[in-house]
Amino acid sequence: MALDFLKIPEDNAVRVAGDALNKQVAAIFEAVGTPYRYAQITADALTSASMRGVDTHGVTNVVRYTESILAGTFKSPQEIEVISESDTTALLSCGWGLGHPAAHIGMEMAMDKAAEHGVGLSTIRDGHHIGMVAYYAMLALDRDMIGMAMTNAGPAVRPALGRRAMLGTNPIAFAAPAGEEADFVLDMATSTVASGKIGLARQLGVPIPEGWAVGAEGEPLTESPADRGEHWAQNPLGNTREQGAHKGYGLAMMVDILCGVLSGGGYSSFIGSGRNMSFAMAIDISKFRPVDEFKEMMDEMIRALHDTPTEPGAERVLVAGDPEEEAVQDRKANGVPILQQHYDAMVKISERVGAEVYI
Amino acid sequence: MALDFLKIPEDNAVRVAGDALNKQVAAIFEAVGTPYRYAQITADALTSASMRGVDTHGVTNVVRYTESILAGTFKSPQEIEVISESDTTALLSCGWGLGHPAAHIGMEMAMDKAAEHGVGLSTIRDGHHIGMVAYYAMLALDRDMIGMAMTNAGPAVRPALGRRAMLGTNPIAFAAPAGEEADFVLDMATSTVASGKIGLARQLGVPIPEGWAVGAEGEPLTESPADRGEHWAQNPLGNTREQGAHKGYGLAMMVDILCGVLSGGGYSSFIGSGRNMSFAMAIDISKFRPVDEFKEMMDEMIRALHDTPTEPGAERVLVAGDPEEEAVQDRKANGVPILQQHYDAMVKISERVGAEVYI
Repeated sequence: MALDFLKIPEDNAVRVAGDALNKQVAAIFEAVGTPYRYAQITADALTSASMRGVDTHGVTNVVRYTESILAGTFKSPQEIEVISESDTTALLSCGWGLGHPAAHIGMEMAMDKAAEHGVGLSTIRDGHHIGMVAYYAMLALDRDMIGMAMTNAGPAVRPALGRRAMLGTNPIAFAAPAGEEADFVLDMATSTVASGKIGLARQLGVPIPEGWAVGAEGEPLTESPADRGEHWAQNPLGNTREQGAHKGYGLAMMVDILCGVLSGGGYSSFIGSGRNMSFAMAIDISKFRPVDEFKEMMDEMIRALHDTPTEPGAERVLVAGDPEEEAVQDRKANGVPILQQHYDAMVKISERVGAEVYI
Repeated sequence: MALDFLKIPEDNAVRVAGDALNKQVAAIFEAVGTPYRYAQITADALTSASMRGVDTHGVTNVVRYTESILAGTFKSPQEIEVISESDTTALLSCGWGLGHPAAHIGMEMAMDKAAEHGVGLSTIRDGHHIGMVAYYAMLALDRDMIGMAMTNAGPAVRPALGRRAMLGTNPIAFAAPAGEEADFVLDMATSTVASGKIGLARQLGVPIPEGWAVGAEGEPLTESPADRGEHWAQNPLGNTREQGAHKGYGLAMMVDILCGVLSGGGYSSFIGSGRNMSFAMAIDISKFRPVDEFKEMMDEMIRALHDTPTEPGAERVLVAGDPEEEAVQDRKANGVPILQQHYDAMVKISERVGAEVYI
């Protein structure tokens, strides 16, 4: 859900069809030795983010992931293995390779277990970036399940009352199927904004609003710093104690516990930069009540919220997933806008690894 | 976690021992026909909140609950029944009586299922207020499990971009056991503050900070209104779109989905004032990794966070559960502070229903 000042400027962007992007990303991964299925999953996850307008987690990330594979930071081919398992739980190792295939397998296992027993959940250790967490939660929708996914990350966010980054932006995704209305899809960093938005502001050369980050002494920052470090930190959702900073902070710790401590892979400040542990859960709605009735009530709730009178200046009350669904419609019709320098980098890495260029 | 300006003023309060309060509350419920076990559970839940400093959800609520029983709004005796069940899931009806016993049974069922299968969860429909949600999540701690509990409520909070109350404060609790450190216990309304804090400000005659609520046209409110209605609404956590209001709002909907839509009991604006549907979940840590290792990593994470350098003016970085644990120590030693008018009301209702007075 991009704020207007963070929208990709069309005069410096190329529009590329989603299918071509998907094919390109998969081809690049295959060219560096990623097994076919893992390349496809990762390409799907990245394309899904791009189609949904979540550009910070979209296809252009193929460049840095591929560089990590080439540098040996991401192991390739990776070995994804089940370390422990019960009727409803699984602990996986991502094998220090691409995060997306392991998170996808974790979610599939959670859904299979939920189909049999009612609920299923997986934690995944030894991992890297899994991209847009909503992608995994949304896998549950086709199976008439509720899906949830989380991932932790290296330190970027200060705890409430603190002034040093100790927690990742540790996002939470939650998806539940509706009937005629768009499905409910929440995907939120537990910080005031995702890190990518601060990075994007830097690339676009625009200041960030007060409340998103603080400097080394805890003073508000409006210029986004070029790198991570002790000289600044993002704010937890809520920002100040009075406005609930302990809640964003608490949610970030919850994500660290479910992803990092439960898996043994480690919490944000333990794992350090560039590593991510993850969590996926599925709940089979039919174990509780008829799915049609569930969806009917979802529709009713969503409509009631859409009909809420707006605050001054707002056009319409939205429900989580609405802005992304709007982006999907636009991008299906007009392609995905890719910043020129990102487009060039994608072409360059394709040529470098010997992948055909489709975009 | 009370903000200083919301602390109960000792010069207008009586300190009463927790045990006496527990006995008093149970006696009142029994006097109006609540079965022994349900009276005990409810007394425990309320006393636990009072001991933890969560006074808005504490023992003084016995007055309004008892009045609801006497008025027939709360059914008594209630019939708590299992509507549907699977290996890992349960749908319960609270039978429109006291919410606490049903939420307690729901959590116990979730824990039993988790012990056998790895994870368990319950939703509870046809219910009323369950008090402090942390109470149910914390039941998991003694069994070396992770506990989670949520409850929805009638409309009090506006959706992001809206100006009418459509959602409950819909709190989320999450508890995970530590080793030597205090356990992690998060308990947060998905609004900037719990409703009770706004009510308490009114009782104490103090203004509320900007950011907690808006008036009928969406303008900031600093005086807390005397009743619910269309003339004001609380803000979702995040408050403005730019600072993440869609996140608090999205979490509130998540709670509505898990408590209200999954159970069929209904979402916030459907159920209306005074009703609450709930959700409880337990995860058996030992299904993933040795519990000792889990707790060791919890300790390590908690210590790292405690050691974070503070923002200007802050004494120490806290972890969720710390302020409540501090309250427990104080109240074990000195009793629970009860506002004089609340104390009088408790005595009065005891006499009215013919319960012995222990406080």
